[in-house]
Amino acid sequence: MKELLLIGIGPGDPRQVTLEAVEALGRATVFFVHDKGPAKQALVTLRKALLDRYRPQGGYRLMQLADPSRDGQAVDYQGAVHDWHRQRAALYARLINQELGEEDIGAFLLWGEPSLYDSTLRILNLVRECGMALRLQVIPGISSVQALAAKHQISLNRVGEPLMILPGRRLAELTRVDNVVVMLDGQCEFANIEDPALMIYWGAYLGTEDEVMIAGPLHLVKSQILEVRERERLRKGWLMDTYLLRREL
Amino acid sequence: MKELLLIGIGPGDPRQVTLEAVEALGRATVFFVHDKGPAKQALVTLRKALLDRYRPQGGYRLMQLADPSRDGQAVDYQGAVHDWHRQRAALYARLINQELGEEDIGAFLLWGEPSLYDSTLRILNLVRECGMALRLQVIPGISSVQALAAKHQISLNRVGEPLMILPGRRLAELTRVDNVVVMLDGQCEFANIEDPALMIYWGAYLGTEDEVMIAGPLHLVKSQILEVRERERLRKGWLMDTYLLRREL
Repeated sequence: MKELLLIGIGPGDPRQVTLEAVEALGRATVFFVHDKGPAKQALVTLRKALLDRYRPQGGYRLMQLADPSRDGQAVDYQGAVHDWHRQRAALYARLINQELGEEDIGAFLLWGEPSLYDSTLRILNLVRECGMALRLQVIPGISSVQALAAKHQISLNRVGEPLMILPGRRLAELTRVDNVVVMLDGQCEFANIEDPALMIYWGAYLGTEDEVMIAGPLHLVKSQILEVRERERLRKGWLMDTYLLRREL
Repeated sequence: MKELLLIGIGPGDPRQVTLEAVEALGRATVFFVHDKGPAKQALVTLRKALLDRYRPQGGYRLMQLADPSRDGQAVDYQGAVHDWHRQRAALYARLINQELGEEDIGAFLLWGEPSLYDSTLRILNLVRECGMALRLQVIPGISSVQALAAKHQISLNRVGEPLMILPGRRLAELTRVDNVVVMLDGQCEFANIEDPALMIYWGAYLGTEDEVMIAGPLHLVKSQILEVRERERLRKGWLMDTYLLRREL
């Protein structure tokens, strides 16, 4: 039985981790970390800040996870993601088997909240289906969505209203937008919406020193967001942002 | 200018607060707390655990907020809630004015996450509209929704799918349920849904020693959830629960 902790480490501010996460950081002996992808440098920085701060005594190993690359242009998006998950599951199974001894406790350091648009739990379930016995513990973390709301000082929902959270590629399907949080919108789908009643609350690099935020009527601020987004993306080489769209009454 | 912290204190486990929240608990000099409502005893217990643990040196005052009662039977639900918020705003304005001196920092200890189905921010905006200058800081907390997902070891969304979060009273309006988190469902709306393709992941008193969880096909476990819910509610005198409904593919 291999023991693994899935630790939500928040959006980027080392103070935005819970004491449960700090305790878990102190127990793990092997940390599995992604060192690829556009946000590589930011994740390296946050991980280093967390381990320096909450694990100063050392006594752990870092294992790099070099994820297989995914076909971002595939017509069958979900199919491509599932294939990618299966490849990652094979990789994770091999690494866990090699690196995690009887006395070890492995840990994945996950941006934000492990249950929201993160696939690690899904991949570890595939590892289980391949026959490896895993004892998992999931430790919630502050999502970038929560950081967005806190910094803009807004509620995500209004009284009695539903809230929807979705990836950018699904935004165009909605027939009506009331309270919608959009994550993973690399294509700037918000810019295609023409609706003078919508407000946008946007933020990028939330919780980090590069944090930038813009709020206002969508039709008035969308071009400003596009400009800032492009400028920051070029400057840093990557960008992570999220936003809330809300219909004004 | 009155300074106020809105501190998310998580669902019930004192380890499920962030270091940012702990720091805020250490800075505040006046804590405003609700001592009414069905969950009164649980909130008193959690608040006491947090202050004993993270503010052992004392040096603060506790101010009870005796909320005006709300008309739970009103036909115009949103209108009744807005009236109630205006009454609370008048009360908060008076208390803040009386109790918060130049050097004081006030704090509201809020269950879960301040931006999700909590009205404190909304009420403080009404206080501002009445002419009181407030400097606010919002500190995110782990929501019961995140605790639910962590304990069931599930993702809230599946690959590329939207997630909806809504209050129980809005569930019956949905024409299709894929990934829906329901909060504040005192009327057990889930029991009215007949759909053999739905799974339910349910939890009550998440993060506390009374935590109870049930998962399975909705049509098979709904009567068990109703029984456990009623038994626990009678035993403790109150109940707080949340659940995810998910369509199986």
